Amino acid sequence: MSEKDKKENNDLMEKIVSLCKRRGFVFQGSEIYGGLAGFFDYAHYGVALQNNIKNSWWKKFVDGRRDMYSINSSIIFNPKVWESSGHVAGFLGTTSDGKKFNEMFKTQVGIGEEALVSYLRPETAQGMFVNFKNTVDAFHPKLPFGMAQIGKAFRNEIAPRDFLFRQREFEQMEIEYFIRQADWEKYFEYWRGEMLEWMEEIGLDMSKVHELEVPESDRAHYSKRTIDFEFDYPFGRKELFGLAYRTDFDLKNHQLEYIDEENSEKIIPHVIEPSMGVDRAILSLLLSAYAEDNKNGEMRSYLKFRPSIAPVICAVSPLLKNKPELVEYANMKVYVPLKAEFGRVAWDDNGNIGKRYRRQDEIGTPFCIVVDFDTLADDTVTVRDRDTGEQERIKVADLKNYIKERI
Amino acid sequence: MSEKDKKENNDLMEKIVSLCKRRGFVFQGSEIYGGLAGFFDYAHYGVALQNNIKNSWWKKFVDGRRDMYSINSSIIFNPKVWESSGHVAGFLGTTSDGKKFNEMFKTQVGIGEEALVSYLRPETAQGMFVNFKNTVDAFHPKLPFGMAQIGKAFRNEIAPRDFLFRQREFEQMEIEYFIRQADWEKYFEYWRGEMLEWMEEIGLDMSKVHELEVPESDRAHYSKRTIDFEFDYPFGRKELFGLAYRTDFDLKNHQLEYIDEENSEKIIPHVIEPSMGVDRAILSLLLSAYAEDNKNGEMRSYLKFRPSIAPVICAVSPLLKNKPELVEYANMKVYVPLKAEFGRVAWDDNGNIGKRYRRQDEIGTPFCIVVDFDTLADDTVTVRDRDTGEQERIKVADLKNYIKERI
Repeated sequence: MSEKDKKENNDLMEKIVSLCKRRGFVFQGSEIYGGLAGFFDYAHYGVALQNNIKNSWWKKFVDGRRDMYSINSSIIFNPKVWESSGHVAGFLGTTSDGKKFNEMFKTQVGIGEEALVSYLRPETAQGMFVNFKNTVDAFHPKLPFGMAQIGKAFRNEIAPRDFLFRQREFEQMEIEYFIRQADWEKYFEYWRGEMLEWMEEIGLDMSKVHELEVPESDRAHYSKRTIDFEFDYPFGRKELFGLAYRTDFDLKNHQLEYIDEENSEKIIPHVIEPSMGVDRAILSLLLSAYAEDNKNGEMRSYLKFRPSIAPVICAVSPLLKNKPELVEYANMKVYVPLKAEFGRVAWDDNGNIGKRYRRQDEIGTPFCIVVDFDTLADDTVTVRDRDTGEQERIKVADLKNYIKERI
Repeated sequence: MSEKDKKENNDLMEKIVSLCKRRGFVFQGSEIYGGLAGFFDYAHYGVALQNNIKNSWWKKFVDGRRDMYSINSSIIFNPKVWESSGHVAGFLGTTSDGKKFNEMFKTQVGIGEEALVSYLRPETAQGMFVNFKNTVDAFHPKLPFGMAQIGKAFRNEIAPRDFLFRQREFEQMEIEYFIRQADWEKYFEYWRGEMLEWMEEIGLDMSKVHELEVPESDRAHYSKRTIDFEFDYPFGRKELFGLAYRTDFDLKNHQLEYIDEENSEKIIPHVIEPSMGVDRAILSLLLSAYAEDNKNGEMRSYLKFRPSIAPVICAVSPLLKNKPELVEYANMKVYVPLKAEFGRVAWDDNGNIGKRYRRQDEIGTPFCIVVDFDTLADDTVTVRDRDTGEQERIKVADLKNYIKERI
């Protein structure tokens, strides 16, 4: 990378971090106390983005399927889970002076003599494996079937860095898909396709997504095949999501098996694991969506989120905030019905219209709706498109459908 | 309570716990390793119930309002947060032999000399206070306004008990509503009403909900007024949710203030805090919904969840699973379109129809749809109502609307 490219990439990260704070997407964790390395707090629009991403994932991979069983397991387990899984012995990081240490956060459960040292889960995956037996007993699923979870995970990283990329507390969206050993190549391919499809659906810039076939020497010892989906971040091409064939390693560790109810055959299913992260999804989406252009001599930056993912789907403005008839119309006839329908609707009457457009551009709001004096006469409003800046005159009665067609 | 009542109440809790495991709502945490007191894992239908409750709360209190700013803060903060908030000195429990201990779970962040002892948050509330300044700077809200968060909290309880009631890891839904001091009584009343309305909306048995005006001697020292909403659990009338007037205690602790942008007036807002818990909402909902009756000499138990909250909104069955024409019709013309529309749709072809009804009754599925041989001739299906057991013949083309009208 040339010095110029490096500088531009640093600038881009700075712009994203600054926009995230200024517009209320992501704040530094504990900022008023000097922060804490590796921890971030999501603000209002960041939470909306998280919710939209998680809902899209859940709809596709859980609610949209009949072979997926969800789990929301605790963050603290009986420590025996982590002994059996291999994490107590093997989940190690290396300090700058070469010493090994366990990357799991430790904590003590209970008080006094009954106290037990346990850990904050470093992955959601074990939450599926330890609930495998209970899930099979409750739902009697036939192979292949999956277990899915969205939840927080914690790793005591020695060097948290690059904003949301390497945090100590983060959120995972993981699937453990249980199969017969003979089918592993088929389902590995299948999940590769599903993951790519979802990345495209949420609006990642697919020209920045690359597949890395992880060589045997770099794979976990139990994995027979792993693909890292990498993303071209400004700080380099690095991991975004992962897809691993974990064999029967985990179920064996926990001494679990599966009995086929039709022929009483006992087997240990093998596992394909599509693993995604909420925070990396958000960082790569911000980087995919961020754009700058020059309109009529004026520079602007904007986030070109898909309407289905944007934290705000439309903003409603009265042209002038000191004209009660405009404010009342904008509120009662536009904002309230749209808010009831879509939820993610903003009221924006602060500053002049140009300022409001710049603000909504930075939030990534696809549509800005303005109520003006013509509205009072003909029940039409101006709808301004975020990406083109073009304005259309739309009937108030048609607004809901106009937006629905574009989600 | 008489011995007979005690026995019946114990039986009821046992029935609920057993149903939750058998039908896949809630499993004991780390069960295959002997469990860990105070930790539970939500299984597929429990996760659906959690999601429906959280979505209902979010829709009413966040997306449905224009004065609410959400936050998703980290679980681990800079420990200075907990020093300023008073938790390091004052968040104490008492052991059985009278010793005081801090109920926050401790953990070490970082390695070696740079390591810092911090805590897992014992409440989500401080996540709002520490982000107060950044939120005001990003969104410029006018008073009154609120900050809202749904997320996990952790308390090292000395005696976790009563299933989901007193856990060591649990999930809160909290609002900090910032007001001018003079308005506190008005907004306390307002939030009291909002909380009661929501409890009714999700289907709590309101005859079991009672308001306890907490006397000064039992209130936190900073609270000028607190109401506990209590629920008649089988193990006694105990806290469900809380509503507290926290004065300006927290913002003062963190040395935070608010500047009115219109007149540059500096004030420290006061706070009304409606505090709800996901797990207690679920336990009280299970207890509100659980029913037994005797239909034609056959005992059955069922969960009479509202359709908007039920984990499964309808189950689709072919009358016979070995008749391909029934299976194909049920799948392609009923299950697939309903699943695409509602998500929470189950395919159930296991056992005879009576068994399927009993199973769906215990899951709390309001509608069971059966495709039989008449369906092939006239495109109608049987829809069976969970509570009355009555069956109607409905046109397949009308099914979506039939269900929509009942959500």
